[in-house]
Amino acid sequence: MTHIGPGRPRLEPRRRQGQTPRAEILDAAAELFTTKGYGSTSTRGIADAVGIRQASLYHHFAAKDDILDALLAETITAALELAERLTGSPEPAPVRLYALAWFDVRQLCTARWNLGALYLVPELRSERFADFRQRRDDLRRHYEALAAAVVAEAGGVAVGSELLPFRLVESVINIRSDEGASPGYAQRVIPGAVLRLLGWRGDAEQVRKAAIRLVEGIDQSDREND
Amino acid sequence: MTHIGPGRPRLEPRRRQGQTPRAEILDAAAELFTTKGYGSTSTRGIADAVGIRQASLYHHFAAKDDILDALLAETITAALELAERLTGSPEPAPVRLYALAWFDVRQLCTARWNLGALYLVPELRSERFADFRQRRDDLRRHYEALAAAVVAEAGGVAVGSELLPFRLVESVINIRSDEGASPGYAQRVIPGAVLRLLGWRGDAEQVRKAAIRLVEGIDQSDREND
Repeated sequence: MTHIGPGRPRLEPRRRQGQTPRAEILDAAAELFTTKGYGSTSTRGIADAVGIRQASLYHHFAAKDDILDALLAETITAALELAERLTGSPEPAPVRLYALAWFDVRQLCTARWNLGALYLVPELRSERFADFRQRRDDLRRHYEALAAAVVAEAGGVAVGSELLPFRLVESVINIRSDEGASPGYAQRVIPGAVLRLLGWRGDAEQVRKAAIRLVEGIDQSDREND
Repeated sequence: MTHIGPGRPRLEPRRRQGQTPRAEILDAAAELFTTKGYGSTSTRGIADAVGIRQASLYHHFAAKDDILDALLAETITAALELAERLTGSPEPAPVRLYALAWFDVRQLCTARWNLGALYLVPELRSERFADFRQRRDDLRRHYEALAAAVVAEAGGVAVGSELLPFRLVESVINIRSDEGASPGYAQRVIPGAVLRLLGWRGDAEQVRKAAIRLVEGIDQSDREND
């Protein structure tokens, strides 16, 4: 078999989303994992879907696990980064929690493939994915800390409910899977519901505006620093 | 190969949960589907786990699909039955919704295997599972109708949030999967959070007591009719 490495002619023209062979492999794998299942997808199948040889795929990823790990990282990296930035923000806890939920719901809804559907595959419990699980736990703990601050501010009536905002946000994954499309209402409805379930009863419209300004301000300062 | 049918001696002594061969097959399949994955489990593997021959398994289930279908039914049948009974109940909507959420969280937490983790497997989108999807949609619509009644009663501030109680209840599946055990706090925390996210601000303790009485009253009348 001829080895077709980077820069060599391909078996067929590019037809995947992505600017680089690596991005095309990730896109094809994401489609196969979410539509056929992780266990039922082979690296051979992924290479075929990209239109490259399996040997070329191995140039970018040593194993199927590594592809899954890279895809899973995409589902939490931006939200975790925002959560870390919000920790140092002087805004009130309800604004920061609304901002995190609003941003996270948006990215879970707009990602091209519903990769969160893979959170429940048994393979994720293996040592190989311990780092990913740790990072997702870090994100969960950011939600819980912000939610605990909101509960305390709201009068502490809702002990235990600080564990739920992270879960309600991730439920967009299930909605996407059931409805076969991203739920348009999720970004409008979920962040406010997150605050109410914590017993918070403030002015939702005011918090919403402040939260969106906060996220857009962070986006803006990132662009200026690029 | 000798066919070992019902009533014939087994290859090894019974070691699965279940009073009947059918129940043992379901238990073994549930364990394999949730720990190894649906796609990675064969009927041969299930038969081996039960300690019967594959031919004996086919006496009870014609295909792996049929085993999954029977297992999925267990995750919604009781909740759907309760939801239908609650439709005709004279109790206020918050009590009925609390009752449904409380009962459903309990059964999702106490089921021996976390079968809801299979809701996201790609195979469920096939025609074979259209009936199951329909029944789960029926359950979802019961939640949405009760939640809409609660929103209306609470002043209608939370349009769209009636879609979320079903999702928050099903999030116990994700919590079980992440924590490796059933969350003890879920049954205490989730039903009240469901009402609060709808904008409801009544007396939670009173609703909780009325809801539990309602579920236990229905259980009691079922036992008397047996």
